[in-house]
Amino acid sequence: MPSIDVCFSPELLHLYELKGKAVVAVDILRATSTMVTAFAEGAARIFPVMELEECRAHAESGCLTAAERNGVKAEGFDLGNSPFGYMDGKVQGRNIAITTTNGTRAIRMSEAAEEIVVGAFLNLQTVADHLTELGLDVLVVCAGWKGQFNLEDTLFAGALVERLQKTFASENDSSLAALYLYQTAKADLVTFLRQSSHVRRLEHLEIHKDIEFCLRHDVYNVLPVWRHNMLVDLKVRELKG
Amino acid sequence: MPSIDVCFSPELLHLYELKGKAVVAVDILRATSTMVTAFAEGAARIFPVMELEECRAHAESGCLTAAERNGVKAEGFDLGNSPFGYMDGKVQGRNIAITTTNGTRAIRMSEAAEEIVVGAFLNLQTVADHLTELGLDVLVVCAGWKGQFNLEDTLFAGALVERLQKTFASENDSSLAALYLYQTAKADLVTFLRQSSHVRRLEHLEIHKDIEFCLRHDVYNVLPVWRHNMLVDLKVRELKG
Repeated sequence: MPSIDVCFSPELLHLYELKGKAVVAVDILRATSTMVTAFAEGAARIFPVMELEECRAHAESGCLTAAERNGVKAEGFDLGNSPFGYMDGKVQGRNIAITTTNGTRAIRMSEAAEEIVVGAFLNLQTVADHLTELGLDVLVVCAGWKGQFNLEDTLFAGALVERLQKTFASENDSSLAALYLYQTAKADLVTFLRQSSHVRRLEHLEIHKDIEFCLRHDVYNVLPVWRHNMLVDLKVRELKG
Repeated sequence: MPSIDVCFSPELLHLYELKGKAVVAVDILRATSTMVTAFAEGAARIFPVMELEECRAHAESGCLTAAERNGVKAEGFDLGNSPFGYMDGKVQGRNIAITTTNGTRAIRMSEAAEEIVVGAFLNLQTVADHLTELGLDVLVVCAGWKGQFNLEDTLFAGALVERLQKTFASENDSSLAALYLYQTAKADLVTFLRQSSHVRRLEHLEIHKDIEFCLRHDVYNVLPVWRHNMLVDLKVRELKG
């Protein structure tokens, strides 16, 4: 039986073996939720990059550029980090270069893995099905907040452990903790998270609508995976297949 | 109102400001539980050291030496890491040099703090009272297991957050998570922890009796604090003083 483990922060990633594993990179508020939404809205490719300048440079090759720093849209870019900014045909057929405070880092630091999947509550079951099909050991890499543990990414990890608990072993302490926290919180994630520091930081930025959206489960059948320095939607490939 | 925060691993400690704070170093299974027990049994001073050789060298100055590696007593030392090894007058009036896999590291890495207290369920209320009296911001530093998150140290952190929740602010995500996990587990910590990887590792070593003991709350009125490169029991000093 393959196993599922949870890494609570990119700062702990060096303690884990990535080789041969499937990594699920998660930054619920809001990078990976937004990437999933972008693909659902027809984006062609997403280039997650670390620096603002690198992101800006992608505009020359026809990319839309998206940048967030400390929870707000960075100046001089086409898009921010709110999923609603990617709707209404804005990203249909387009390539997007994106840089965010924490989410991009979780993806790029996991490049040694066999497969990197971008996870969010929005595509939870699609991710779970893909992992079951792959049958590799899974490591959920939580983006956290500036290296620190955060609740919303942990709750996603717990939701994934719950969905996979019949087919994956989850006996390590971090996946048990994530599962228990999710089971405590799942009846009302929005209320539960309202106590969290990051959510309060974002509420302050008046994005309550974003938060409610990013906590919805199984909205999209979208599967962003890492291929040759970019993210593509494997579901679209299957459909076109 | 001062705050209480929780650092889940020494590997995350660089993300926290220690200056001016009270650190509670915790390694429930078993380093800090054993240190608390040693003081309750009359030990004079404890020298937590990082390396086996450094520990051995303390024998020359009349110290008892105690060493654990990977859950078992290291060869050629007077004591291991089981609290029961420190009972029956064995440590009365003695100085002890001790090195353990994770616990020693949590203490030594926190030296920039204003105060370092050694915490365990065994002296939970004594620690809580001391922190209330100090009134400093608190950081609980979990020793973890080889840098990774573990449940038993997190549950201690949650218990401390619960005891302090009327007088300390605990709005960060790690202290909320610790509190929720403790509230889920506290009715039967032994059964809850039986699923944990570290506890299963230790059960394998047939130390179930140690585990049950280390999870008992408020057994000792003992307060080990860091002073000039050693731990002393502040309660003994108060009584004598």
